[in-house]
Amino acid sequence: MVNDKIYMDYAATTPVDPRVMEAMQPYFTERFGNSATLYSVGQEADKVLEDCRRKVAKLLGAKPSEILFTSGGTESDNLALKGVAFARGKGHIVTSKIEHHAVLHPAEWLEKRGFSVTYLPVDRYGTVSPESVEKAVREDTILVSVMHGNNEIGTLEPIEEIGKICRKKGVPFHTDAVQTVGKVPVNLKHVDLLSSSGHKLYGPKGVGIIFIREGTKIDPLLHGGGHEHGMRSGTENIAGIVGYTKALELAMKEMKTDTRKLLGYRKKLVDGLSRIPDCWLNGHPDKRLPGNVHFCFKFIEGESLILLLDQKGIEASTGSACSSKSLEPSHVLTAIGLKPEEAHGSLRLTMGRFTKEGDVDRVLEVLPGVVDRLRQISPLKK
Amino acid sequence: MVNDKIYMDYAATTPVDPRVMEAMQPYFTERFGNSATLYSVGQEADKVLEDCRRKVAKLLGAKPSEILFTSGGTESDNLALKGVAFARGKGHIVTSKIEHHAVLHPAEWLEKRGFSVTYLPVDRYGTVSPESVEKAVREDTILVSVMHGNNEIGTLEPIEEIGKICRKKGVPFHTDAVQTVGKVPVNLKHVDLLSSSGHKLYGPKGVGIIFIREGTKIDPLLHGGGHEHGMRSGTENIAGIVGYTKALELAMKEMKTDTRKLLGYRKKLVDGLSRIPDCWLNGHPDKRLPGNVHFCFKFIEGESLILLLDQKGIEASTGSACSSKSLEPSHVLTAIGLKPEEAHGSLRLTMGRFTKEGDVDRVLEVLPGVVDRLRQISPLKK
Repeated sequence: MVNDKIYMDYAATTPVDPRVMEAMQPYFTERFGNSATLYSVGQEADKVLEDCRRKVAKLLGAKPSEILFTSGGTESDNLALKGVAFARGKGHIVTSKIEHHAVLHPAEWLEKRGFSVTYLPVDRYGTVSPESVEKAVREDTILVSVMHGNNEIGTLEPIEEIGKICRKKGVPFHTDAVQTVGKVPVNLKHVDLLSSSGHKLYGPKGVGIIFIREGTKIDPLLHGGGHEHGMRSGTENIAGIVGYTKALELAMKEMKTDTRKLLGYRKKLVDGLSRIPDCWLNGHPDKRLPGNVHFCFKFIEGESLILLLDQKGIEASTGSACSSKSLEPSHVLTAIGLKPEEAHGSLRLTMGRFTKEGDVDRVLEVLPGVVDRLRQISPLKK
Repeated sequence: MVNDKIYMDYAATTPVDPRVMEAMQPYFTERFGNSATLYSVGQEADKVLEDCRRKVAKLLGAKPSEILFTSGGTESDNLALKGVAFARGKGHIVTSKIEHHAVLHPAEWLEKRGFSVTYLPVDRYGTVSPESVEKAVREDTILVSVMHGNNEIGTLEPIEEIGKICRKKGVPFHTDAVQTVGKVPVNLKHVDLLSSSGHKLYGPKGVGIIFIREGTKIDPLLHGGGHEHGMRSGTENIAGIVGYTKALELAMKEMKTDTRKLLGYRKKLVDGLSRIPDCWLNGHPDKRLPGNVHFCFKFIEGESLILLLDQKGIEASTGSACSSKSLEPSHVLTAIGLKPEEAHGSLRLTMGRFTKEGDVDRVLEVLPGVVDRLRQISPLKK
């Protein structure tokens, strides 16, 4: 639908919904006040900020004081891991092998600074077993971080069970919910820290939130003027925050209808693509993000597939947008047991609010021929 | 001019220039691609991002690879201090007592983590003497951070001389130039790290840059997908980056005319306000930001002054927006030697692109009466 192209990469980023844009607009040029000032336009900004915080808290089932606005999912993830680590000074972190790099790389960085980290394996669907979390937690564990929905293969993790175990053990539980907030129900009951990003749910880029349960020991990542209860300094991006809030409101309101539509399209795509020889669906067959379809096609390179699809007007990804320029096989596909040559033939199609049935039909019309053509010229094909 | 009010707080934040807004607009809803993806809309985003980086680099006299986009001035300051500190592991930092909290608080936080910090005093104008920097630098000094223009009293610091000393001593020099980029000429020749923020120069909130000279040892603050050459992960806020770039272009192009206008208004304001009894100008008389006027009025509270001025349609500040909700006397005013009771009677009037001569006249018409009224009811007045 966008730019006359068929956009199939909603997991990478989404366009700003026109209704979100409309809500943000006045906060750039007219209602531009700095929320930390005492006069009217500043106080108005402060009021808008706190209104947004209350709305987001209510939509997620949190207290307003537990919601902080950040610059996005990466900052929220970094704050969760490093903030808890710095507040504790030392200790052990449990996470999984299929986390987003915004969790894995902070974990690796903390390892270099004296913290120890366990990276849990996953099964062939990419599921982290709650039992493995229970076994991994030690006396000195200061944090467990397991994502809610995997950005590549779409698998939904059992965060309720994992959260319950963490609660029982008295260890804070963080979940990167960048792919799930506004897409599938998120229950904060057993969660202590949660990351979400605006541009994954039809809000703007450069804004996100972190939920931090009251009483969680955590240091700020950005020190300064003491904004966000001293937990995240920096003049608040009011336009972005208004955008995030409106986007979340819309996503929550339209979740049911959006999901019903996407589940239908997903089934159609999976059924149709499964007819192509030598290919398979990655991720969990049912417990997965409604808009996510992830296949591997033997004997071909995902990059070539993306480029040929692009020529045909279809925009898709090999996996995580955040690492698609890298030549290494995806750490997620490696973790579910794929060999490098299998992992290289991956294609992620992710659908969203503006996807139409005709888009799905067009993919099913085009893709088999493209795969066939690439296989004919493939040196990998025997 | 804004909201029919007279806005005199451009140092706290600026409205987005309509020309900036126009430039940003397409990047929210249409050209919304994720720059890390391979297909057309993503590649287009990547091209726009690199175009912006080149433009900003050229405007500031840097190499494109030396410019990173961040979420704003606070992040840039935190990255400069913590990034250098973490890369070095230990050592000594030299900064000044009048820095923005986005420099001071990271410095204090690093002190708790084993780094040592020297906070240089300033003279009565708020000037850091280059000699004091030279004396403070030790064998183990890893960073000097002195701001370019003070956000409260407007004093411009001798960063060229300070930078030369640092270069001679082989110590990286960071300057928080949030108040000066686009307002007064900034020479990067002797600077190794520089912070700038979009919303101080008629760009959007939530975006800024950091200049990091090639070869500077520094760790990232946000780890993740490896964006910004691995130095600042997180999906790039393309709309914001386009906005920052356009804002900087305009500010550089219009600096001369804007400055000429503001110097005239500043003189008029300073001359006019000086006629009020028992008051004085803070900051350096000449070496100061063109749009900054900062006075102390004896026997009154700045907060009451702000509120009465607001009633009369004039929006101003007591000092730093970032701490104006705090009741402690400003650390800057304390550093220049004011007693707490003197510091409390402060008023900052900061003018900018949309300030008109009539606004200045109106302030001069209203302020003497407001000060007089407050003094009549003041318990501080003998």
